[in-house]
Amino acid sequence: MAQESIDEALSGDVSPADSGERPSYFLESLERGLNVLECFDAQHPVLTLSEVATRLGIPRATARRVLLTMTDLGYMAQDGRNFSLTPRVLSFGFSYLRNLPLPRVAQRHIEKLSLDLGEAVSVSILDGDRVVFISRTASPRLLNMAISVGTSFPAHATSSGKVLLANLSAERREAFLATTQLLPYTKDTVIDRAVLGRELDAARERDWAVSVGELEGGMLGAAAAIRTRSDTVLGAVTVELPATRYTGSELETILIPRLIECARAIAVDSLT
Amino acid sequence: MAQESIDEALSGDVSPADSGERPSYFLESLERGLNVLECFDAQHPVLTLSEVATRLGIPRATARRVLLTMTDLGYMAQDGRNFSLTPRVLSFGFSYLRNLPLPRVAQRHIEKLSLDLGEAVSVSILDGDRVVFISRTASPRLLNMAISVGTSFPAHATSSGKVLLANLSAERREAFLATTQLLPYTKDTVIDRAVLGRELDAARERDWAVSVGELEGGMLGAAAAIRTRSDTVLGAVTVELPATRYTGSELETILIPRLIECARAIAVDSLT
Repeated sequence: MAQESIDEALSGDVSPADSGERPSYFLESLERGLNVLECFDAQHPVLTLSEVATRLGIPRATARRVLLTMTDLGYMAQDGRNFSLTPRVLSFGFSYLRNLPLPRVAQRHIEKLSLDLGEAVSVSILDGDRVVFISRTASPRLLNMAISVGTSFPAHATSSGKVLLANLSAERREAFLATTQLLPYTKDTVIDRAVLGRELDAARERDWAVSVGELEGGMLGAAAAIRTRSDTVLGAVTVELPATRYTGSELETILIPRLIECARAIAVDSLT
Repeated sequence: MAQESIDEALSGDVSPADSGERPSYFLESLERGLNVLECFDAQHPVLTLSEVATRLGIPRATARRVLLTMTDLGYMAQDGRNFSLTPRVLSFGFSYLRNLPLPRVAQRHIEKLSLDLGEAVSVSILDGDRVVFISRTASPRLLNMAISVGTSFPAHATSSGKVLLANLSAERREAFLATTQLLPYTKDTVIDRAVLGRELDAARERDWAVSVGELEGGMLGAAAAIRTRSDTVLGAVTVELPATRYTGSELETILIPRLIECARAIAVDSLT
């Protein structure tokens, strides 16, 4: 610890902004760099320096330093005034994915279910207050949800989010319900903490959950928990489809049992 | 420009290390942060502060600041002394991939070829002196190359690297041959610049290339260029397999024609 304090004093790498509400170790320029990386998204694959500065609300000079540093390091490509990401950024996400056994184990099971149902099937896990897709099949349908591995959604508005939140420890579940801002994405999004709590109770009991039009109008999500015999929930198997495709009773008699069956097969494989 | 200089002077975000050989805009702590992200790889999914410091050759205090900042920002999870990546890092790579039309167009074509050949098939592109896999099918074989989307290899030692280097502009090709360190990965890796230059000439003429044991002993790579009618090379379709699976003549009469056919189908689809 003493050595760390000395190193820290010597490093001199503290920006003035650190003296604000951030802890003293906090590296502002690292945060800005990661924010810049994230601001190149599907809707904004190419951005100018000014656009990055505007989107993030940071000075042009700061945006410039981040973009030029990233370009030097090979994460960003510059073409005149335009900046875009390079394939090198793939190394982050995929080194993470390669370390998860779940996507490897799950893939053949969700591909089988996807063929049977004629729908895209996914596996998702919880990351804080969001669900993140870590496996997904290509959809055989023309009409497709714009979901790929890496896509994330607010947990409270999705079926997989409900089934995963339902299986948190009592402590973490309480913390989620107490602190998360429950934004309404449609008029049907459950934003009442007591109502959501009861939905989580039900999801915990059944090991499945649905979300009808809560993230997007007309869309139905259904998810089953991947639960091992030691009662650990590894993730959720989910489908999203137009709500008109199944009636309420078909949902419970046809779709949900298939999801549960797939989730169980993945859980069994995950133990071997 | 004047405004930028003023902003820059005011930002005060310059670390002493910047005054070395790095340009004045260079953000050391951003580089360190990205280095830390990259040092969590398939072989090292969990690392302690000391391990990160040792692997990167940086002071413990620096590693500590980066790891704690990343944890605050949600990219890193801490469990006692252990740090690991969170699903949030997926957002970088996949926002890049979502913006590439090629993986979407290529997927069904390489899945078809993969079924026909009984081998994993990939699409790769060039990133500096490395080839990066941007699409890949699941392999039906038990014995598998540890390759996933995001994996990269040194271009000079791979079949896709050769076919992509061969199609660079004369200027960029010269720069590659003049400046890239051609490391020998096996005794068969071509590290003689003149010999590699002649191989690239051949690859340019035929639109395909092979690499026999140049990246790993006993492994054969074969790749065909995805070339549009306007003579743009979008990427390469590749297979890697044990060199014993095809004789030299079977390679040219069976495997290569299928790769070329697949590459042409992708090129045609990419134009529509």
